[in-house]
Amino acid sequence: MTLQTSISLTLPEWIEAEIESTASYPSDLEKIELVIRLARLNVERHTGGPFGAAIFRDPSGELIAVGVNRVVPETCSVAHAEMMAYMLAESRLGTHRLNEKGPAKFTLASSAQPCAMCFGALPWTGVQHLIFAARSEDVERLTDFDEGPVPRDWESQLAKRGISVKQDILRSEACDVLSLYQATHGISY
Amino acid sequence: MTLQTSISLTLPEWIEAEIESTASYPSDLEKIELVIRLARLNVERHTGGPFGAAIFRDPSGELIAVGVNRVVPETCSVAHAEMMAYMLAESRLGTHRLNEKGPAKFTLASSAQPCAMCFGALPWTGVQHLIFAARSEDVERLTDFDEGPVPRDWESQLAKRGISVKQDILRSEACDVLSLYQATHGISY
Repeated sequence: MTLQTSISLTLPEWIEAEIESTASYPSDLEKIELVIRLARLNVERHTGGPFGAAIFRDPSGELIAVGVNRVVPETCSVAHAEMMAYMLAESRLGTHRLNEKGPAKFTLASSAQPCAMCFGALPWTGVQHLIFAARSEDVERLTDFDEGPVPRDWESQLAKRGISVKQDILRSEACDVLSLYQATHGISY
Repeated sequence: MTLQTSISLTLPEWIEAEIESTASYPSDLEKIELVIRLARLNVERHTGGPFGAAIFRDPSGELIAVGVNRVVPETCSVAHAEMMAYMLAESRLGTHRLNEKGPAKFTLASSAQPCAMCFGALPWTGVQHLIFAARSEDVERLTDFDEGPVPRDWESQLAKRGISVKQDILRSEACDVLSLYQATHGISY
């Protein structure tokens, strides 16, 4: 067998029909509503785990990229919602660091607190603001996912690198999606 | 503009010619020699950052996938050597968790200690043994890369999840590649 040298990852087909790509999402609330909707649709359509994420250019709130969890359908442990959003945003804007090219500020919205991988990836992306709904403790309480070894001082580690955080936005709505997943899918991967 | 819904990442063209895909690498030393060679070729050919990684099926040491840093050429902050290797190994074996399908044990070899992202990603992959050459302190001393917020107790966090670690294998040879990169490329991204 020869070595594989390329990889391709794809979002579900329903994304284009369901997500209004030219709308703006200026407030944190609008951003979080979108990513919880992505997470719920991903569960309802059986296209991956109960997580949604998106990257916006602020202050306008222009939607740059969305992501949903694609680990099982794409057989790829890296394909978390946040990672899909990072890769798609950077590819679309043609840069490996989103804030490299000017004064715009980029926000990552996630339906749940980033796991150890998605947290560790954040400083490389050029995102300066992180907002999320459910906490890691919610994910671990309501599903079987292990969120991994996130440092205890994660928030100050991000602050040190110029990334601000706002959590608990529509937390219970995001928890509902986690519960729906657990009820309809049973065991997490 | 419509949303982008798929992403593709590719290793450099020289991989196929330079890497013997059917060879076996049973010892830790042979594995580390291979990944340092990958890192050095990536610097010499100007195809990415000074890092190489590979995944092997043990005890035979069968090479499953290789990776090199592709952040700048692929405009993708996720495209670290380890992440490329994780994704390519899982895609080749058709599973999102390498150790899911049997008793084989998988090893990740990396030319340098995994950064916060690659560290956080490791428990999701099903790799049970991590070996590396240069330490994070070497990377930060010899280049301008920030290895990110890795927890202080990273080794016990991995042990808790069934992942053993061996470090400092050919450490100075890996440091030479870091120095070569810094001397020939100057500023890191």
